[in-house]
Amino acid sequence: MGLADRTPPTAEEYADYRKRFSNWGRWGSDDELGTLNFITPDVRRASAQLVREGRSISLARPLDTNLGPANPYPAHHFVPVDGSGGMADYFGMFIHGFTQTHIDALCHLADDSGEVFFNGKPFGAARIPRDLTGTIDFWRDGVVTRGVLYDIPRLRGVDYVAPGAPVHGWELEDAAAAQGVEPRSGDAVLIRSGFGPYYAATGETQAFGSVAGVHASCVEFLYEHDAALLCWDMQDAPIADQGIPNPLPYPVGLHVHHIVLPYMGLPIVDNADFEALASACAELGRWEFQLVVAPLVIPRGTGSPVNPLAVL
Amino acid sequence: MGLADRTPPTAEEYADYRKRFSNWGRWGSDDELGTLNFITPDVRRASAQLVREGRSISLARPLDTNLGPANPYPAHHFVPVDGSGGMADYFGMFIHGFTQTHIDALCHLADDSGEVFFNGKPFGAARIPRDLTGTIDFWRDGVVTRGVLYDIPRLRGVDYVAPGAPVHGWELEDAAAAQGVEPRSGDAVLIRSGFGPYYAATGETQAFGSVAGVHASCVEFLYEHDAALLCWDMQDAPIADQGIPNPLPYPVGLHVHHIVLPYMGLPIVDNADFEALASACAELGRWEFQLVVAPLVIPRGTGSPVNPLAVL
Amino acid sequence: MGLADRTPPTAEEYADYRKRFSNWGRWGSDDELGTLNFITPDVRRASAQLVREGRSISLARPLDTNLGPANPYPAHHFVPVDGSGGMADYFGMFIHGFTQTHIDALCHLADDSGEVFFNGKPFGAARIPRDLTGTIDFWRDGVVTRGVLYDIPRLRGVDYVAPGAPVHGWELEDAAAAQGVEPRSGDAVLIRSGFGPYYAATGETQAFGSVAGVHASCVEFLYEHDAALLCWDMQDAPIADQGIPNPLPYPVGLHVHHIVLPYMGLPIVDNADFEALASACAELGRWEFQLVVAPLVIPRGTGSPVNPLAVL
Amino acid sequence: MGLADRTPPTAEEYADYRKRFSNWGRWGSDDELGTLNFITPDVRRASAQLVREGRSISLARPLDTNLGPANPYPAHHFVPVDGSGGMADYFGMFIHGFTQTHIDALCHLADDSGEVFFNGKPFGAARIPRDLTGTIDFWRDGVVTRGVLYDIPRLRGVDYVAPGAPVHGWELEDAAAAQGVEPRSGDAVLIRSGFGPYYAATGETQAFGSVAGVHASCVEFLYEHDAALLCWDMQDAPIADQGIPNPLPYPVGLHVHHIVLPYMGLPIVDNADFEALASACAELGRWEFQLVVAPLVIPRGTGSPVNPLAVL
Repeated sequence: MGLADRTPPTAEEYADYRKRFSNWGRWGSDDELGTLNFITPDVRRASAQLVREGRSISLARPLDTNLGPANPYPAHHFVPVDGSGGMADYFGMFIHGFTQTHIDALCHLADDSGEVFFNGKPFGAARIPRDLTGTIDFWRDGVVTRGVLYDIPRLRGVDYVAPGAPVHGWELEDAAAAQGVEPRSGDAVLIRSGFGPYYAATGETQAFGSVAGVHASCVEFLYEHDAALLCWDMQDAPIADQGIPNPLPYPVGLHVHHIVLPYMGLPIVDNADFEALASACAELGRWEFQLVVAPLVIPRGTGSPVNPLAVL
Repeated sequence: MGLADRTPPTAEEYADYRKRFSNWGRWGSDDELGTLNFITPDVRRASAQLVREGRSISLARPLDTNLGPANPYPAHHFVPVDGSGGMADYFGMFIHGFTQTHIDALCHLADDSGEVFFNGKPFGAARIPRDLTGTIDFWRDGVVTRGVLYDIPRLRGVDYVAPGAPVHGWELEDAAAAQGVEPRSGDAVLIRSGFGPYYAATGETQAFGSVAGVHASCVEFLYEHDAALLCWDMQDAPIADQGIPNPLPYPVGLHVHHIVLPYMGLPIVDNADFEALASACAELGRWEFQLVVAPLVIPRGTGSPVNPLAVL
Repeated sequence: MGLADRTPPTAEEYADYRKRFSNWGRWGSDDELGTLNFITPDVRRASAQLVREGRSISLARPLDTNLGPANPYPAHHFVPVDGSGGMADYFGMFIHGFTQTHIDALCHLADDSGEVFFNGKPFGAARIPRDLTGTIDFWRDGVVTRGVLYDIPRLRGVDYVAPGAPVHGWELEDAAAAQGVEPRSGDAVLIRSGFGPYYAATGETQAFGSVAGVHASCVEFLYEHDAALLCWDMQDAPIADQGIPNPLPYPVGLHVHHIVLPYMGLPIVDNADFEALASACAELGRWEFQLVVAPLVIPRGTGSPVNPLAVL
Repeated sequence: MGLADRTPPTAEEYADYRKRFSNWGRWGSDDELGTLNFITPDVRRASAQLVREGRSISLARPLDTNLGPANPYPAHHFVPVDGSGGMADYFGMFIHGFTQTHIDALCHLADDSGEVFFNGKPFGAARIPRDLTGTIDFWRDGVVTRGVLYDIPRLRGVDYVAPGAPVHGWELEDAAAAQGVEPRSGDAVLIRSGFGPYYAATGETQAFGSVAGVHASCVEFLYEHDAALLCWDMQDAPIADQGIPNPLPYPVGLHVHHIVLPYMGLPIVDNADFEALASACAELGRWEFQLVVAPLVIPRGTGSPVNPLAVL
């Protein structure tokens, strides 16, 4: 089963993803780029050719300093009462989670052994890699490539991807066809589930983790098309919606995360906001553009807050 | 005196900069973009045409978590001992200062009255604007424009701009001519003083504030050429080097800051690292490129850490 | 109505508390101690005479770094990933709330005008006093006085004060009588509602604010007996349980807080844990002891985390 | 050499302190109190008898949020710009260092192997113990004991202990004799070097670490008299002043710290302020009092900020 016959993986097939979609060793044992290796100078140059209207659109949500169901450890925006040498405002945040827009470095999640991450590099104490490897600072030169928006609600003719109906890999193919785009090596794959309309309609984000989102069946699509980066507005579909057991003893089943980060070596931008971009794409009749993601240079960081820009 | 006769401003002329180079009201009383208004769709589109080799280069310094003469309030990179819901690493920093690469929003500095900032908007308590205006979140769609590197050490045939010899406005004109670039409306002006070599040679950053840097005489250049953004690796030259009195009762004399932020409405990216870019420009024989700056969306923030990217 | 006839205040009577129980001006216009003035050298000396068994018992809850219904903004306990000059662990917290054991300074809450706090001192921006007054650093020499535990569940013969049945002022009198203690000027009044057993039995803290707790009718008791400090394990009873309207437009009705801090000038230690102390008191057959509270010296702080000690 | 002949230890003798003054196993292998075991109920009770005048005096310095030579990583006192659920001020700090008054838990420093701390308990990653042992939360019931101030400047007839003339163990004996105090088991030993006058006279704290302070020869005194706790206003004398090599490859030579914490199991309160206490003692003609130290209950903390109180 799989993309070819439009069927989600069985538990066994999903278990096999760890081998089937692994890129360990593909770019050498000292590689720090993972699938960003697909972004060649040609890919970067071609992406710039997509800047036609001269519009730039943010894909970030505003920093959220208030507690919420999906924001259990909110960001900080402080001013000193006195002291601190007269410094102005202080900004701080936990890098991951389900609210702030951020990019995951390859060291963010361990493989199923819990002891190593991408390329077999040793995990360390406190969720930080033991050695200086796999961290966000290796991507300081940023991600500049073609971004393609896969607008699933548009494909389905609905407002948002509803709970119980996760995004499947073959829908990415359908969306590409409907939108007249050919997936290419080095693409940033932007999967829109419609978080904005979902939140507006339901008023809730319900618990830690997406309530709706992307099925593990999309992993095959990412691998087969040599995607360089995944960016989404709703993360991995909940466990029940995946129809396969939870790979790890966590309350949320990150079926996509746990394959693409530690095995495929593919960066993820979590918690994007695609609403303005989706409108612009629909208006212009094109779903490809230059995408720029510029992680902060945090030495040994497991990721970074980012404000991804789509330039059309 | 001025650019025309290659003479720095007198104290009187500098005082007059507040009127002469003011953009208050130029784009309406509710304007939130300041000189970013110069970046039209045409400017953005043209900037993308400069991506020829398909190379992307970071202009950010790594986040510095250690105390140093120029880093009195270092950034934080923490992991929780326990608790915090199992969140991974925490990153935090004071947004401004002389170490971390960041962008200043228009509300960062007040005018000479100390009570209002650009466009006459009211300053508030604790260095935060009273109203929702002038803050970094208005620039969420980022800065995408042509960047031009003005490589002053290269022009002078030295390793770095030395203390006592600040960068003057007419040297920007000379550098443009030497590099074969025509300044254009909407440009990001990147002034390289050579902080990297300076630090390597001297081993010090000496106190809060640049020890060498950019003279107030450059303000006229920025205004006359409709610059959209200023980015530099060494900030305003020290007071003595400016040859004019310190405008404000601070230990550092931010002669450029105090004109371009509150009066001209021009964003500044402080503490850039131009070394890799300068090498690439010299190698390729061109000093213009696509520049992308993507501030984090910090509501009411007075700025943001950034990782500016030059795409060649 | 009131203590004398064992009746809770009407809305009118409660409104009158602001005048009736005010201590503004009682110790001069520059006073920074409020009811701590009742702790004379004699009171302090007498408290030491209560140390008979030589036992010391903490009244603090452990610092809680995890999100919970009563802990929306958890404390921080971090270690640096690298950098920070090799400093060891970092501890941080919001000073107030419903979880961490802390003391409220007199500047913590404004009076009903929202513009001044105890003794008419001006409130400032960002919930910090405008002038250097009313802050926790004035209490640097600590609170050393007689503590009396009013064990209400013991008086009632129940495990804990249940929702809907708040602690009333006359029950404090009953508890004193039952425990053989005479209230004295300068006492620290420790009101036990039995948070530990409540939490153990119900498994919940339900929302921001106590679900059960202390009725505004206790304010009269505190005033009439010249209490120096209030310490409790459950805070102000919910609005419905008070039977009087909420004084302020907040989701929680802090009927006791809003009288004793801004009008009476009486410090509060919130979120204590009395379980070990209550056992010891029952075992020893006495409910008085030396109480020591030592706030951290946080200049301009609105309070401080504390670990109050009962020494028997 | 040693106390008996008023001679500082040789390098060999100092090396032998690790065995000679070790308390490993003295109170069992699961002991969490170390020398706090000397504080018996009798000791606690007797300490309360010293409260005669009914005066309480803070021994803490105010929290310092500004950078200084001895404060490279200053404390934080913040207010949220917006958000944070309307929480008031935030307080945070690195627990150790040379500025804020704090207590060191037994897990704070490893023995010379760098792998275990007091009682052979395993050290862990990021300077946090591997197991739940040796941490500050075990001392939640606080320290209540007799405190004795050893006022060395008074003994010497000078304003402060000058650089080059560290406090020696036999001076503690001399001070006890001069002050009419008999050292007793369970005492808190407060060694005053006169940091306040030193700082007032010289205006500097010069670098990380005390510029003057306490010689390793005092360790014998602490051990021989069964001291329960050490509290001081200037820490270990600089390396040169000790006359023995630095035990560890650190820029500061913590000769006392590195014996009493990992080997003797004796808590230290660093960076106290004894000025007000010294005046009161001189005025009253007695140098003993009730001392109360109440560490915050920070689970797994390596120490805690404290405000020690002397009650006379």
